[in-house]
Amino acid sequence: MTHTIVASEKREVVIGFDKPFCVIGERINPTGRKKLAAEMIGGNFETVEKDALEQVAAGAAVLDVNAGVTAVNPNETEPPLLVKTIEIVQGLVDVPISIDSSVTAAIEAGLKVAKGRPLVNSVTGELEKLETILPLIKKYDVPVVAISNDETGISMDPDVRFAVAKKIVEHAADYGIKPHDIIVDPLVMPIGALGDAGRQVFALVRRLREELKVNTTCGLSNISFGLPHRHGINAAFIPMVIASGMTSAIMNPCRPQEMEAVHGANVLNGTDENCATWIMKYRDHVAPQGTMPSTLGGASHPKIQPGSNPATRSGRRGGRAARVGSGG
Amino acid sequence: MTHTIVASEKREVVIGFDKPFCVIGERINPTGRKKLAAEMIGGNFETVEKDALEQVAAGAAVLDVNAGVTAVNPNETEPPLLVKTIEIVQGLVDVPISIDSSVTAAIEAGLKVAKGRPLVNSVTGELEKLETILPLIKKYDVPVVAISNDETGISMDPDVRFAVAKKIVEHAADYGIKPHDIIVDPLVMPIGALGDAGRQVFALVRRLREELKVNTTCGLSNISFGLPHRHGINAAFIPMVIASGMTSAIMNPCRPQEMEAVHGANVLNGTDENCATWIMKYRDHVAPQGTMPSTLGGASHPKIQPGSNPATRSGRRGGRAARVGSGG
Repeated sequence: MTHTIVASEKREVVIGFDKPFCVIGERINPTGRKKLAAEMIGGNFETVEKDALEQVAAGAAVLDVNAGVTAVNPNETEPPLLVKTIEIVQGLVDVPISIDSSVTAAIEAGLKVAKGRPLVNSVTGELEKLETILPLIKKYDVPVVAISNDETGISMDPDVRFAVAKKIVEHAADYGIKPHDIIVDPLVMPIGALGDAGRQVFALVRRLREELKVNTTCGLSNISFGLPHRHGINAAFIPMVIASGMTSAIMNPCRPQEMEAVHGANVLNGTDENCATWIMKYRDHVAPQGTMPSTLGGASHPKIQPGSNPATRSGRRGGRAARVGSGG
Repeated sequence: MTHTIVASEKREVVIGFDKPFCVIGERINPTGRKKLAAEMIGGNFETVEKDALEQVAAGAAVLDVNAGVTAVNPNETEPPLLVKTIEIVQGLVDVPISIDSSVTAAIEAGLKVAKGRPLVNSVTGELEKLETILPLIKKYDVPVVAISNDETGISMDPDVRFAVAKKIVEHAADYGIKPHDIIVDPLVMPIGALGDAGRQVFALVRRLREELKVNTTCGLSNISFGLPHRHGINAAFIPMVIASGMTSAIMNPCRPQEMEAVHGANVLNGTDENCATWIMKYRDHVAPQGTMPSTLGGASHPKIQPGSNPATRSGRRGGRAARVGSGG
């Protein structure tokens, strides 16, 4: 069984096919958040702290930390800022860190200060990337996110993306890095632009799991880019990728609809033992206003009657309502 | 490609792997609805009419019709009542009917009056059932729901359930009935009672699709029986069974959360061309109160910037936020 172990100083998180879906909180990232970038440049980490606390409270198992505030001279400015941000985050919450940067010096600086066993985000199939990042992965004995693009860009052909992932796994093996320390991101395209984007990912994740035996992740919300009511698309996508075998995602855990989909899929995938997390979270659930027509809110005709044993209950009705008991 | 064709007088619905998930409305069924049963016995069809109109408005493609109001002498009382109910429903709405009864005489009476090409719900693997229902399926040239239990009851072993389904398909072939006219119900157990219920169904549906090449269905809400916030479990289950290859379900279309999951999964499965249905339904979507913390309602940092071409856009940031464009 493939188990990727990430850890903070005191807490270990295991990513695997038989484990609850691992939610990697994406919010500590100034890309596209001008206000946050300005704050971080100015040495103000209030939003970082708020995002760290809120994401952990909302259910993030790992926190991605990105300090890419500027495109100007990042090799000098990003390493110290990433170090500072990681130190603030791990001083505040006790979850493993995902060190997120395209700057190798920043990743190495992060690795020196991150406690436990952080995740590195990311390496690609580009030769230069492989040859700079993989030695760090080996040296620090940490897992890495492997994105399935290379010098030629992102292929629209999922077979090529699979081949890139395979190439990364093979390169890593040359460094003595095991497949269980590689989490492949098969790359999620916007479904609004590419109608096949969903089926591509489902098939890719299945192959990555069955053939390469690796855990997988994705930048989840890419799938719904450009569509209305993105949370609804994201919330349908999560159970589908989980059913296909995906084991983690980089996403916003502060979205209740998406997190409900994660918790529900964990129940259905058999990774929420005795439905304990679901029952704890939703035992007092009240449907929010506006989600159900009032005329239907009270309608209820359970298919299985309370108190019966669904596996043995016998009933004359062979119709749908008695189905579960109809074989007794 | 497996296509099951059901039809009303004027409308044809095709069930298939490349078609939108077929929602079969379950509500016209007095089992467990004492008030509805009493109304139907008394010749009052107001609730039947309301349920027919509401379900079609909510997106049901087919309406299941069950008139099993009593366990007393059903062979005499059920056929005329089912006929009456079918006539009322098909006089009111123009969607195909699913004739739902455990009484063979009622099914045959229904077949005589249902217009178009109704679905028969159901046959099981019990020999007596096979020998009474399959001749009707052949005679009227209609599709049938095949439930994977037999004289021994419902097996907890999914391999046995698969074998029962295979037996039904083979028996049907002896009558000249093609696999595309058989919609297998692999039987959904409550996940709260059987932690493996989800994975069993996902694996079974995949096998039924790949090995028997049949369409599939289920009584959807059985999965969440006994758990709090059942709609959340149902809404996670729908994308997962669709990702596994299920092509229809008997369910309540008047539940917005479940229907949103259906529409979202259709987008992601590539059966909502150009996302047209999704965009039409949700273009003006406003998150209902209570589903999102107000502090987060306005937060937004799109991963892909509007106006950019996600497949070619180039960005320095190799981090998650620029991921889709990072290969340019």
